[in-house]
Amino acid sequence: MSKRKICVVVTARPSYSRVKTVLQAVKEHPQLELQLVVAASALLDRYGSAVNYMEEDGFEIKAKVFNVLEGENLTAAAKTTGIGILELSTVLDNLRPDIVVTIADRFETMATAIAASYMNIPLAHLQGGEVTGNIDEKVRHAITKLADYHFAASEKAKERVIKLGENPAFVFNTGCPSIDLAERIKDSSLDFDPYLKYGGVGERPGLSDGYIVVMQHPVTTEYQMSRKHIEETLNAISEINITTLWFWPNVDAGADGTSTGIRAFRENHKLPNLHFFKNMEGMDFLKLLNHASVLVGNSSVGIRECAYLGIPVVNIGSRQTGRDRGNNVVDVDYVKEQIIDAVNYQIERGRAEKSNVYGGGKAGEQIAELLWKLPLVYQKRITF
Amino acid sequence: MSKRKICVVVTARPSYSRVKTVLQAVKEHPQLELQLVVAASALLDRYGSAVNYMEEDGFEIKAKVFNVLEGENLTAAAKTTGIGILELSTVLDNLRPDIVVTIADRFETMATAIAASYMNIPLAHLQGGEVTGNIDEKVRHAITKLADYHFAASEKAKERVIKLGENPAFVFNTGCPSIDLAERIKDSSLDFDPYLKYGGVGERPGLSDGYIVVMQHPVTTEYQMSRKHIEETLNAISEINITTLWFWPNVDAGADGTSTGIRAFRENHKLPNLHFFKNMEGMDFLKLLNHASVLVGNSSVGIRECAYLGIPVVNIGSRQTGRDRGNNVVDVDYVKEQIIDAVNYQIERGRAEKSNVYGGGKAGEQIAELLWKLPLVYQKRITF
Amino acid sequence: MSKRKICVVVTARPSYSRVKTVLQAVKEHPQLELQLVVAASALLDRYGSAVNYMEEDGFEIKAKVFNVLEGENLTAAAKTTGIGILELSTVLDNLRPDIVVTIADRFETMATAIAASYMNIPLAHLQGGEVTGNIDEKVRHAITKLADYHFAASEKAKERVIKLGENPAFVFNTGCPSIDLAERIKDSSLDFDPYLKYGGVGERPGLSDGYIVVMQHPVTTEYQMSRKHIEETLNAISEINITTLWFWPNVDAGADGTSTGIRAFRENHKLPNLHFFKNMEGMDFLKLLNHASVLVGNSSVGIRECAYLGIPVVNIGSRQTGRDRGNNVVDVDYVKEQIIDAVNYQIERGRAEKSNVYGGGKAGEQIAELLWKLPLVYQKRITF
Amino acid sequence: MSKRKICVVVTARPSYSRVKTVLQAVKEHPQLELQLVVAASALLDRYGSAVNYMEEDGFEIKAKVFNVLEGENLTAAAKTTGIGILELSTVLDNLRPDIVVTIADRFETMATAIAASYMNIPLAHLQGGEVTGNIDEKVRHAITKLADYHFAASEKAKERVIKLGENPAFVFNTGCPSIDLAERIKDSSLDFDPYLKYGGVGERPGLSDGYIVVMQHPVTTEYQMSRKHIEETLNAISEINITTLWFWPNVDAGADGTSTGIRAFRENHKLPNLHFFKNMEGMDFLKLLNHASVLVGNSSVGIRECAYLGIPVVNIGSRQTGRDRGNNVVDVDYVKEQIIDAVNYQIERGRAEKSNVYGGGKAGEQIAELLWKLPLVYQKRITF
Repeated sequence: MSKRKICVVVTARPSYSRVKTVLQAVKEHPQLELQLVVAASALLDRYGSAVNYMEEDGFEIKAKVFNVLEGENLTAAAKTTGIGILELSTVLDNLRPDIVVTIADRFETMATAIAASYMNIPLAHLQGGEVTGNIDEKVRHAITKLADYHFAASEKAKERVIKLGENPAFVFNTGCPSIDLAERIKDSSLDFDPYLKYGGVGERPGLSDGYIVVMQHPVTTEYQMSRKHIEETLNAISEINITTLWFWPNVDAGADGTSTGIRAFRENHKLPNLHFFKNMEGMDFLKLLNHASVLVGNSSVGIRECAYLGIPVVNIGSRQTGRDRGNNVVDVDYVKEQIIDAVNYQIERGRAEKSNVYGGGKAGEQIAELLWKLPLVYQKRITF
Repeated sequence: MSKRKICVVVTARPSYSRVKTVLQAVKEHPQLELQLVVAASALLDRYGSAVNYMEEDGFEIKAKVFNVLEGENLTAAAKTTGIGILELSTVLDNLRPDIVVTIADRFETMATAIAASYMNIPLAHLQGGEVTGNIDEKVRHAITKLADYHFAASEKAKERVIKLGENPAFVFNTGCPSIDLAERIKDSSLDFDPYLKYGGVGERPGLSDGYIVVMQHPVTTEYQMSRKHIEETLNAISEINITTLWFWPNVDAGADGTSTGIRAFRENHKLPNLHFFKNMEGMDFLKLLNHASVLVGNSSVGIRECAYLGIPVVNIGSRQTGRDRGNNVVDVDYVKEQIIDAVNYQIERGRAEKSNVYGGGKAGEQIAELLWKLPLVYQKRITF
Repeated sequence: MSKRKICVVVTARPSYSRVKTVLQAVKEHPQLELQLVVAASALLDRYGSAVNYMEEDGFEIKAKVFNVLEGENLTAAAKTTGIGILELSTVLDNLRPDIVVTIADRFETMATAIAASYMNIPLAHLQGGEVTGNIDEKVRHAITKLADYHFAASEKAKERVIKLGENPAFVFNTGCPSIDLAERIKDSSLDFDPYLKYGGVGERPGLSDGYIVVMQHPVTTEYQMSRKHIEETLNAISEINITTLWFWPNVDAGADGTSTGIRAFRENHKLPNLHFFKNMEGMDFLKLLNHASVLVGNSSVGIRECAYLGIPVVNIGSRQTGRDRGNNVVDVDYVKEQIIDAVNYQIERGRAEKSNVYGGGKAGEQIAELLWKLPLVYQKRITF
Repeated sequence: MSKRKICVVVTARPSYSRVKTVLQAVKEHPQLELQLVVAASALLDRYGSAVNYMEEDGFEIKAKVFNVLEGENLTAAAKTTGIGILELSTVLDNLRPDIVVTIADRFETMATAIAASYMNIPLAHLQGGEVTGNIDEKVRHAITKLADYHFAASEKAKERVIKLGENPAFVFNTGCPSIDLAERIKDSSLDFDPYLKYGGVGERPGLSDGYIVVMQHPVTTEYQMSRKHIEETLNAISEINITTLWFWPNVDAGADGTSTGIRAFRENHKLPNLHFFKNMEGMDFLKLLNHASVLVGNSSVGIRECAYLGIPVVNIGSRQTGRDRGNNVVDVDYVKEQIIDAVNYQIERGRAEKSNVYGGGKAGEQIAELLWKLPLVYQKRITF
């Protein structure tokens, strides 16, 4: 019997972390053939060139699709998706996969979902059934309705996908593959010097007395506010006066507002405890987190990997609202004082209890096995 | 207070029939301003140039978007949608509507839904919550998850939309606007000569002893079969030997298979009772149907307008499976003998009982009033 | 030394005839590797699916690009070109050819020229330097300015390319590769029955007493006129009353006007001497021509292959104006009477003198050898 | 008689300077109606948002087209052009101009040229006939072959356009409209404080003892080199130790290499005499230049406006090679020492002789008058 061809489309740096162990398990599975397609911001230098990490991790890239349209408005997000469909349909026409895999809920993943489902290729969706605010919410559930197989990351997410009318036979709680990676490093020391290995800009304050990690993305539906949002965090961190490692945000409609805010702040303030990184290889980032006093911002890493590892998190704003969580998270608004208070509280409290809410570290293997065993279907009908 | 700008995107001839009374009611509403955008096959001569009827009906067209990609495969459907997003996002950027309205479940309507929702413009969806087979099923429910307001065409459809996790406050059973049109002509005579008014090709058999109307579209997921499907119907009609008025199919991935089948059949057979029309103005078509002995094919008109009018229908294949229906429909497979039997049965039985399953004729006005009264929202979150 | 990768993009049926012997010579050349890309109407059933002939001829197709946008206006031609650039740039990014080859002057070939030249890939252009009317004229010379190597089809064409400021070292009169094919069949008999082999529609009049071949394409800049144009020819042929084999036109902005004209004429007239073909394999078409009494229409075959073979041609309208020609052509306007007179004159005159104006039958090999020997350059500067 | 509609498509900040007086003259002409379309980098914040200056200057913008694709490679330039064609053809379809105007030779201007010429709209081209290196050279002359009217900026450029086979009746030496602006400020003082008015980053060294202006763009065909190129200039300026005002480069395939180089240099060096501006309103920039000791870099401003104003220029690399020039320019390679020597030479030499090689300051009015008087044509044929 010939191998099943599994086409995975990765469109962003964080998505790569969410799917890396799936890619490995598919690649190693004797009955599966991996077709890795890299698109959108995963190809771009200013968003961390996830593609380079994929190549370093030994994955062969079958096709690259440049489709990110520049622009400071939401129109660009729509257009990026449109171009993605145009190009991915040609890619799928050439690769002829048996199953296409799409990840989570970034706006441009809709291009993968539409190209595959319109071409009658069975579509698997990772991390459906979660609940957040903004456009992600619409995108995630719309993709659920286009997808044929669902690999949810938590039990509640699985239940929601079923309530959305999907056939329970094709809905699974596999846990999140990002937890597989956290599992691998949970006992590692910080075995590299982040300044030497990753450069970045700003001062190089000491790490031995504990440090904060910041990662704050713009929230698309509050575009005009993104500069103000980032300034609240910048001011808070500036006052807290503990070594802080700040990671540059991902691509999004408001990215330039956020970036401009950071650049302007740097020009106008002395920041002796602050260092900025553009990006970091995923495993190194997890090790860094694993030894951090607290993670500040709105990254989903705080909700997922940090729950598993027990790292305290100060989660700002609405981006992660509604997502299942462990007890490691304190939620605050975009208000300097709230951020300062919460960071101090979390540092004092110390390490949180570990939680398996997003899985126990075997998601990649489970998903690969399902991709092999599931019947190939691309038609469905709601039954209520 | 300034008027609300309501942008309606019409992409196909049948969609125009489904939304015409909404367009009229919006246009006449003192607090609403209509922005009519015409796209895809609604602009193309070989699919009936719905745009001409819109202009004749007195609607001003704000923008035209040519986005239908040629091709005999499903890839073209995906690409048409991608181009649609690219172009419609520019159109919406210029028109800046308060609400965008999209209709039903054709593949290219996803472009309207994505452009509007990604640009944070509230999206209203007509005819969500229905159940059919093939890609339409996925598209319809995915659009429900992108839309903010839902104007369902039947009570069951409304209930399904709510079960899909939508806020019941924004889900309404307005009935189908197509029934508004049926209501207007339900007592009219056939007051025109279809041969004289619409030309078409083939013989011109008499209409006074009753006649069959045929309208059969290709079914996208059974692409290779579309020629065989149409030939079963052609053979059945050819044997039945009653005056038959046949309408050319709509654009779809298999359109050329169907068209080729019809052309080849005409070359090789004498068809004294058969006349072919490319298209017909919607009200004229309803009048013609209202005096037909039976409608044969797989058009949704058979399920909706014919239920209201009580016209017998022989519905072929899976295209309308799962849709709510009155008692006017007999379902058959793509098998010549079944088609012949069902047509004879329906002709003998005569007129069916009328049904309000798809509404009572006031959908357009109700929808316009809701478009004025509903709060402008574009964020939502599932609550289960 | 590794082989040079030669990427040839074929976008239409007639272009395939113009480049077939180049493809063969590249494929057989020990130092060259052929990368054949098929795009636009060459992929579409209703324009003769040139792609099928390529596969039958043993060429492997590296990528297919569907980019023909439907529409009855010139906007569609522009959009088809835009989509072509988007997609071909991805294709070239994957194939990484050493040289890209583009053919002649159809509007969509501009997509090939722009993708290659913008990506700094040396571009070779076949059949530059000719002179015609309409948009082809602009396209052809614009491509000359984007191209690095020029393989002109006649001596005058070569001289014009040089006058356009191109470096004479990279401009060659290779003759037209279509003549290579004519050379191969110049002594063949008509060794197949066109009705049996190619079907088509209409009556099947006898071929033994001589026959006319018609091939008339719409002329884009006279869009509104294309239906009237075709009717003049239809009326002329209908009166002439000799067996006529009519070939369906190629894709162009006015294609539907021409097609509609033909279909309507067939519905309304008895045409006992007329048979219509959708398309024919190129070598068979040449054999058919080689035994024809006269070719009528505006195809470039009349100017090129027919010059070499000495076949009388009645050339209608402006499409071939300005092209170098042998003495086999009589030019007429779109006027029924002129067409009739010219056909009668040509039939009476009989076979014309053969001419080598478009080459002597070795173009394919010469071009392949140049593609191997020429230095790889993609920068140039005009020197006057 | 109704007004002629003149559609001008501006795609970048420098193009706006080149066409501003044309826009004003068209707007004020009693027989012309201006349709201003803004596209590509002219809309984007990180390339100076030229669109804001247009609005401040009182121009109404008829349509905005976002079409810049992100990417660090040449493929993005091709794709940006493809998207531009798709979108501009819709814009032109709606605006229905009598003449379209395109400016100079940036890669994305090809989109304007193709959309207009394919849609049979007469096309006017500003600044054809010049000679440079790289892809601009191909683009410029290809646009000449698509254009119907040619408004060249110098006598030699005019002669070259005619040699390229264009009809001399439609080729004019109008001079460059950018000189019209230089003419207006040639006697002005520096009546604003650039630091206060435009912010920017870096130190704020004094301007009263003379200052250098730097503007250096990446050169697309030497993409890998762009970081090295910028570092030579950075090192030279750093050593020269005179107040220097540095302007951020424009969008291009290598832009990120250049930007990264500048950012890294700033992180690692103390630069007390150096200030960076993102952009500056055009008239202010000319005033600043008019009082500068020397302009360094590869901007065409050095060749054009500075020739007219007599400002010394150190021109680096190949970007302006082949362009006609006054005696104000010293050319050097990307070599620190050469740059230092040339700057010192130019400062010592002082103000250069003024030259009218690019016109005398009335280009805008002349072009507007021609746009009114020229016959509307869109077909042409080379005559050699």
